[in-house]
Amino acid sequence: MYIGAQFSLYPMTDDFVGVIIKALSALDPYRDRLQVETDDVSTLLVGPPEALFPAMRDLFAATAATGKHCVLSATISRGCPGEPDDPRCHSPALDATISKSDRIPAALDAIAAAPQLSVHTVAQFSLYLLGAQQHMDEIEACIDLCRQSGLKAAPKHFCTKLAGDAGPVFALLEQSFCRFGAPDGHVAIDLTVSANSPSLA
Amino acid sequence: MYIGAQFSLYPMTDDFVGVIIKALSALDPYRDRLQVETDDVSTLLVGPPEALFPAMRDLFAATAATGKHCVLSATISRGCPGEPDDPRCHSPALDATISKSDRIPAALDAIAAAPQLSVHTVAQFSLYLLGAQQHMDEIEACIDLCRQSGLKAAPKHFCTKLAGDAGPVFALLEQSFCRFGAPDGHVAIDLTVSANSPSLA
Repeated sequence: MYIGAQFSLYPMTDDFVGVIIKALSALDPYRDRLQVETDDVSTLLVGPPEALFPAMRDLFAATAATGKHCVLSATISRGCPGEPDDPRCHSPALDATISKSDRIPAALDAIAAAPQLSVHTVAQFSLYLLGAQQHMDEIEACIDLCRQSGLKAAPKHFCTKLAGDAGPVFALLEQSFCRFGAPDGHVAIDLTVSANSPSLA
Repeated sequence: MYIGAQFSLYPMTDDFVGVIIKALSALDPYRDRLQVETDDVSTLLVGPPEALFPAMRDLFAATAATGKHCVLSATISRGCPGEPDDPRCHSPALDATISKSDRIPAALDAIAAAPQLSVHTVAQFSLYLLGAQQHMDEIEACIDLCRQSGLKAAPKHFCTKLAGDAGPVFALLEQSFCRFGAPDGHVAIDLTVSANSPSLA
């Protein structure tokens, strides 16, 4: 299993370089569990979901705390058949023994246990299940989790929009990534997270 | 068939609102063929690929021409089973009669015929075929098109990175979106396009 993300951080300010460099220290607590590689377009993170999502969350929260309008955009993937197995990615979160009837309550527990970071975010994401038939059933189940999550959730064309504190928002994203599609299946998320938008109603 | 995109434009400048508002006029020539709806996170475009991709291209090129570092991020989708049929989206680009052996030469012709806009871009994208088995075969065929396109193409984890003029780059994206997966299949692209990055080697 190979799990990771290509993510980018967009602070809408002349000092975007300074803001990004300052926020990068938020990744430090995760560096022993994640591979980190940056080029001119995105940063690759490779590792288990329980490090991957909190790392992106903390980096985004540190950026949002500047008060500048900022966006994190990410392509997150697990189980792509073209990628190698990587022991660093092995995770109890992809435990095949949990039944479909138990997974929603387990996901809701994890979201309820998420830390509150006092950073208001608006996110939208699409969940893709590849190589699977009946993929829409799992997507509907994930939308149902969003509705029950306690976060503000609304359908948009091609994605679901969420609003709430960065803590439970990233917990919901992590649960969506891990709990839908086969544990060894090819699953991807296309994610946008925004804070401090002047257009926010 | 329902075809569209949720896209966002990120100019990394204090005057991001002014830059976005000024660039929006680039959409005007496409407004009769596209539905356009904006909220605080993204803009929805609905319509045929031959309007959708040039509209995003021209908006991005207008933004990049300011010289500011800017990024366009988009979730592009066709044939999602949860979406309604929309006559505005009917397109000869999704003509089922072209054979698999003819599609690569036809795509290369379209890329070669693309206008040169004198805007250097770096893009990365992931192509997702949903509800299809053997989805990796089509993804490999698309990667092969990228390699033959005349653009600089490099594999990254979870995506393919392209570099070149915005004209052929967006033409390649449009061809990738239309020519892989069944003509009536559910296909999505997760796209990032960047210009004027200070990190660009």
